[in-house]
This record gives sequence, structure tokens and C-alpha cells, in this order.
Amino acid sequence: MKLNIAVLAGDGIGPEVTAQSIKVLKAIALEYNHSFNFKYAPVGAIAIDETGNPLPDATLELCQNSDALLFGAIGDPKYDNDPSAKVRPEQGLLALRKALGLFANIRPVKAYDALLSKSPLKKDIIKGTDISIYRELTGGIYFGKKETSADGNSASDLCEYSRVEIERLAHLAFKAAQARRKKLTLIDKANVLETSRLWRKVVTEISKSYKDVELDFLFIDNAAMQMILNPKQFDVILTENMFGDIISDEASVIGGSIGLLASASVGDKYAMFEPIHGSYPQATNKGIANPIASILSAAMLLEHFDLNDEADLIRTAVDKSLALHITTPDLNTKYDNITTTKVGDFIADFI
Amino acid sequence: MKLNIAVLAGDGIGPEVTAQSIKVLKAIALEYNHSFNFKYAPVGAIAIDETGNPLPDATLELCQNSDALLFGAIGDPKYDNDPSAKVRPEQGLLALRKALGLFANIRPVKAYDALLSKSPLKKDIIKGTDISIYRELTGGIYFGKKETSADGNSASDLCEYSRVEIERLAHLAFKAAQARRKKLTLIDKANVLETSRLWRKVVTEISKSYKDVELDFLFIDNAAMQMILNPKQFDVILTENMFGDIISDEASVIGGSIGLLASASVGDKYAMFEPIHGSYPQATNKGIANPIASILSAAMLLEHFDLNDEADLIRTAVDKSLALHITTPDLNTKYDNITTTKVGDFIADFI
Ligand SMILES: CC(C)[C@H](C(=O)O)[C@@H](O)C(=O)O
Ligand SMILES: CC(C)[C@H](C(=O)O)[C@@H](O)C(=O)O
Repeated sequence: MKLNIAVLAGDGIGPEVTAQSIKVLKAIALEYNHSFNFKYAPVGAIAIDETGNPLPDATLELCQNSDALLFGAIGDPKYDNDPSAKVRPEQGLLALRKALGLFANIRPVKAYDALLSKSPLKKDIIKGTDISIYRELTGGIYFGKKETSADGNSASDLCEYSRVEIERLAHLAFKAAQARRKKLTLIDKANVLETSRLWRKVVTEISKSYKDVELDFLFIDNAAMQMILNPKQFDVILTENMFGDIISDEASVIGGSIGLLASASVGDKYAMFEPIHGSYPQATNKGIANPIASILSAAMLLEHFDLNDEADLIRTAVDKSLALHITTPDLNTKYDNITTTKVGDFIADFI
Repeated sequence: MKLNIAVLAGDGIGPEVTAQSIKVLKAIALEYNHSFNFKYAPVGAIAIDETGNPLPDATLELCQNSDALLFGAIGDPKYDNDPSAKVRPEQGLLALRKALGLFANIRPVKAYDALLSKSPLKKDIIKGTDISIYRELTGGIYFGKKETSADGNSASDLCEYSRVEIERLAHLAFKAAQARRKKLTLIDKANVLETSRLWRKVVTEISKSYKDVELDFLFIDNAAMQMILNPKQFDVILTENMFGDIISDEASVIGGSIGLLASASVGDKYAMFEPIHGSYPQATNKGIANPIASILSAAMLLEHFDLNDEADLIRTAVDKSLALHITTPDLNTKYDNITTTKVGDFIADFI
């Protein structure tokens, strides 16, 4: 297969972890006789520094002319403590999601047996946890009308949803549930929000076409508790943009290994793959950034093009690296000198 | 002191736990020569059953003519799975908060040493946790304009905040921080929301009058992670309505003892005290509902009127009941026959 892959490595540890997943994809191409063509473009703080725009036109154009996007991370502390900053790195990510129509953010959360002791939660609570979160990514309060009054003394954000926005994501989530443990939990705040009641109505209707999937509902406040009390109860989670942001980040830490979690953001035409961790500026260029989340994002990319054997081989290589303690310091209880590059090398060599 | 206390026991286990805190307040009145006058009124599902209205006029009137409110819990499963229900028990609570101007919801979250093993989190992570959450309770997306299109295919909720709404709560939170460990964390989503940027601006301005308090900011998604990874980092948390709903419920389970957590909702004229747990319908009338959260809410009520010795005595009695295993089954590792009433009796007798 021939694939044009746009690489948007971004800020902080983005470039160094992405370099490892490219190395791994090149090994896969060699082994399976594919042709992957990588083209690089700036996004986020680094793009602001270079062009004044967190998502330069040339970057967007490259993405629109590629088969898939490999994304690193964005964010720089110099923009964080300035609420009045007119341009922020995050805008690049939001604009990209919107421009490419990436409405479905899919985040698998798994508790790896080898890493159970790393979790802040007790072992018996997390052992066996295996969740797939479907978060709506181009609607809701993120993209609704925002206003600040002329005197600067009041502000508003509008949360809006339409039936089609809910339907297209819900179908993906129900299909995923059918291929898994056949349970889908809709997370909302239907006791307060009109948009949540629309979600419940539409999802309930759609569930009639997926009779083999058990549907249940949970208010977001209760979900935030249940994720800690009993994460094993979840199979597929379906939710709107803001609640998805919160619950997926909460879920990401229960396994004790946020450095292992990958995500896909897909739309009708484009698809983007990225680690769920951030740009982690304190760790930049120290060789300590864990590249596995980025490497597993590359596996999700391959899967998206039905290259399932290739994706499985990456996963086997990752499992091997964990078993042999070829991991960065965040996970390593045995060696303290395994760098980002060494992990990438090991996994690429294994392939 | 003479106090008129409106008792809104509500649904599910509400009445039985509230009966215990009344018993305890009567013991306090006897011991300290106060006169507490209790008047009862329906709210929630029980009020819908009786009058069709979750907050009947007579109930609101009673509240407006009382010095304080003791609230139980509301909610009945028969309303939960009907998104189209026009009347819901929760509306009674929301209407009450708004009508009485209860803009500040204060929730202390503490990890009790005696109960550390009950937590889903590891001991070393939660030991010593002591957080006070200040949640805005009468604004934001809860009370903004809600719309559904005529064809029922789209819906919206407006999140609005004004400077005054933020200021009055922020002052309370900063004062609380001054009396505690002098740290205040504002939780928001200022990288996405206009309202969050207003919160950051106003809170930053106000912080200049509280120079001894260290102020920091956390995005809600990151906060949902930090609450699990390292809850001890928090002292006072300040946040808007919806984020407060989520983060305070998440925080409530880390101590392993949601049956112990009390809350106060205060405004300029009125104040309401309630356990943070819900109506827990499955447990109703089985004698297993833990009354301590309600009893500690009564302690917060006394404190509100500067009856600090009285509040301390209740807390001492509660500690004693925990130490002696005079607790309901949810917490009891020793006896299995201690009922809701027995816990109330023990604490009242101790006083
Ligand atoms: C950077 C930020 C705007 C973004 C979001 O809130 O969507 C991030 O938290 C995420 O979850 O990808
Ligand atoms: C019952 C519900 C409307 C309420 C809220 O969301 O405010 C509850 O969850 C709470 O936190 O008191």
C-alpha cells in the first residue's frame, strides 16, 4: 500500500516521540513492502513562532492532500498564563479538527497487567479494565458562539448539538460495541441540559438498530465517580465534546500509564492519530519522553487502512518492550538508562 | 440561640438520615440551651407526587421564613429514564438554589485515617487529603437559556457568567484559603471557553487583595487527572457550576467514604445544609443508610451561626462513633447490625 502521511510533530516532546513512530512505520513499510511517504509541517506554538498562526495555511493544505495525519503534541507554557493572549497553540488543534471534519475522537484505555502497580488505584479495581471512549470532537461548547460584553464584565459560550452530529458518532460507537463486549454507556447531564436530552433521545432511537448492544446512561458527575470506583463496568463510552475531554483524561490515569495511550480522530475524509499525552515541556529533549503512545497511534493509523497484521506486529513489539523492561524511566523499575530513542530502536528492530 | 430550621428531607434515604441529624441537633439544643424549631416541607419526587410541583410554593415560603434549611436528598428512578419528562425532582433543587440565591456550594473532602483502606486509591496517595471545594451554584450552563428547535432536531444550552457572580464566590474562597493552607486553585477550561477566561481575569484581579494566598490554575481535564494522581496538592478549589459538579463528585469518592461528606450552600440571605450523597433509592427504609453526612451537615449549619463549640462536639461524637465501629454496614468491618437509627442514637447520646 502507498500512503502519504502528514507529520505534525508540534511542540515539547512531540517531535522526539513522533520520530520514533516514524522509525517504526518505516520498519513496517520495509517488512511488508508498503510505501509510506512522510511530509512534515509545523503546528501549535512552533507554528506561531514561525508564522504567527498555530495552523498555517500550508500545514492545512498538506493535511488535505495526505491520506492520514500523525500528530505529536502542542502547547507551550509561555501561552498558558496569559488569558488575554489572542493566539494560542490549542487553536491550531481545534481549527485542524474542524477544518478536517474529525468528528470522532476514539481513545482506548487499557490497564496493562505488567503495569498495574503503577496505577494510583488499587490493583483489584483496575485489573482487566478495557474501555473504548468515543468523544464527539467538532461540536458542542467548544465550537459554539463565544461572546464577551463590550465592558468585559460578562461572557458566554453556547453549547449546541444537532441530530446529525450525534447520529454519525453514535453509529461508530455502536459498531465498536458490537465488535467488543456489546455494552454502550452514554454519558451526559440530561437532568440539567437540553443538549443532553437531545443526545439521549437520538441515541435511544439509534439503539433500536443495534439490538445486541446493551445501552445505559450515566450523568457525567456520577460517571466521574464510577470511573474510579469500578472502571471495569465500562465497555464503549459515548459522549459529547466537553464531557469526553474530562472523562477520557480521568480514565487515562487509572491504568497508571498515560505514556501508553493512543488516540484516533476520524471524519468522513480524513483521519489523525496522536498520543493522548500533552507536550510535557519539562521533559523536552531529555530522552525521557515515552514514545509508546505515539507508536501505538501509528498502529491505530495502520488499522484505519485495514493493515491489521501490521498493527498487531507493532502491538506485539510494544508488549515485548514492556516485558523486557525496554521502557523509559516513567515505567521502568529495572533499568534507568533507556532513552526515548532506544525504545523506538528496539521496537523497530523487533519488527 | 433561637433558630427556625426548615427540614426538606426529600426522597429515598433522605428522610431517615435527616431524622438522625434532627435528633443530634435536639441533643445539642438541650446541652447548650438553644431553641431549635423544626418545620417540615416536601421537595423533589415526593412533592411531585403530592402536588405536581417538585418545589411547591408552600415549601419555598417556609424556607424564606426560616433561618436555615436542612436538606435530605432528592431523586426517584421513575423519573430517570424518561428524558421527555416535563417535571423532574431535580428541578426542585435547582429552583430552590436559584430562588434562595444560594450561590456558593462548599464541599469539604477529607480522607479519614480510620477509613483509608476503604478508598479505591492507594493509601499513600490519599492519606492527608483535605480539600475545600467552592462551587458556583446559581449560574453558568445550569441556568442559561435552553432551546430545542421546533423539529426537535437541535438543541442548545447557554453558559453565561458575569463579573459579580465570580467575585462574590471568589472572595469567600480566598477567605477560606487564608484560614487554611493558603492555596487556591481555579479550575476552568480557559484554553477553550470565553467564560473561563473571564473567571481567570476576575479571579486574578481579586487575588491581589489576598497576597498571602497562592493562586494557581488548572484546566478541568487536567484537574480530573490530578484529583486521582495527587489529591493532596489541593487546598481550596474554586470553580464554576458544571465543573464543580464533576470535580466535587470525583473528589468525593477518593476518600472511600461518600457517606461522610457534608455540604453547605450559602447565599447572602439563606443557607442550606445537605449530605452530598443522593437519594440512594435501593437502600430506602432498610436501616443501612449512613446518617453521618447528614449529621455533619448539621454541624456545618451550627458553624454557620458561629456555634463552633457545638459543631466541634458533633465532630468529636462522629469521630468516636467511627473509632468504636458504631457505623452503618458501608463502613463497618466489625459489626453488621448497626442501623441508621443506632448511629444517630449513639451520637445524640454522646452529646
Ligand atoms: C488542548 C485542548 C484544546 C484539547 C481539548 O480540550 O480538546 C485537549 O485537552 C484534548 O483533549 O485533546
Ligand atoms: C441533581 C443535580 C441537578 C445536582 C447538580 O448537578 O447540581 C447534583 O448532581 C448536585 O451536585 O447537587
